Amino acid sequence: MAESPCLRASHDFRWDQVDLRPYKEDDAAPFKAIARQELFAHPSLGCELRYFEMAAGGYSTLERHEHVHAVMILRGHGRCLLGSEVRDVKPFDLLTIPSWTWHQFRATRGEPLGFLCMVNAERDRPQLPTEAERAALAASPAVAAFLKEGA
Amino acid sequence: MAESPCLRASHDFRWDQVDLRPYKEDDAAPFKAIARQELFAHPSLGCELRYFEMAAGGYSTLERHEHVHAVMILRGHGRCLLGSEVRDVKPFDLLTIPSWTWHQFRATRGEPLGFLCMVNAERDRPQLPTEAERAALAASPAVAAFLKEGA
Repeated sequence: MAESPCLRASHDFRWDQVDLRPYKEDDAAPFKAIARQELFAHPSLGCELRYFEMAAGGYSTLERHEHVHAVMILRGHGRCLLGSEVRDVKPFDLLTIPSWTWHQFRATRGEPLGFLCMVNAERDRPQLPTEAERAALAASPAVAAFLKEGA
Repeated sequence: MAESPCLRASHDFRWDQVDLRPYKEDDAAPFKAIARQELFAHPSLGCELRYFEMAAGGYSTLERHEHVHAVMILRGHGRCLLGSEVRDVKPFDLLTIPSWTWHQFRATRGEPLGFLCMVNAERDRPQLPTEAERAALAASPAVAAFLKEGA
């Protein structure tokens, strides 16, 4: 039987027929006040599109992996670590996070920060920094300050 | 050499380092007042993410194809044909357009209508309706009215 077309309406960054899920299925990695909605995961598509949203003060896991992230900020202002740089982000900004690039998002402006993230459906699992890698990142004062925000 | 991370800032639905392109590279298919920006087309990603925007009164081509579209409305209100149904759309609504489903977007509300569209990087070319197929679609009064809006 042919698949039916489908419109799923949005309601203040929630969507019909989309579950609000934990950010990660396990709690081995540090994160705070962030949730995940899987917007598109279609068997015919090579990528998935997810929406992640942090409450004010929340943050995603500091991590890296082989797979590439294509990100569009959708809601709110905040900051992100992108490799060795800390950048301010605002709605509709685009971020390309290449393979093995450390990254983290933080809702540093007293408001929720939400973003779309496109990834390959088949992808590797993220790696967390070792103590030495974390120290190397924090050798930059800007990064050190970022890592403490909201922590 | 490793690829650098990249932040491309948004400015009123235009993006740094993203060209504003014609909707289609040829003019064999009917469309009106619509432009294309390719936001993500990365060699490691199985999908591309594009942004299409119609001016008020504009419309995309009425077409179908094997490849699936995953769409999020980003700007403005309008209407779309999705198979045999006409639906109103608003910002952040999600549309799944399965294989071989007729579809068209129209900026029917006197404002621009812009949307994200995720597609496989490798995909087939769209087909246009024959006269008979167009007549079959327009047998529905709602579809017939839709196809005349802004035309």
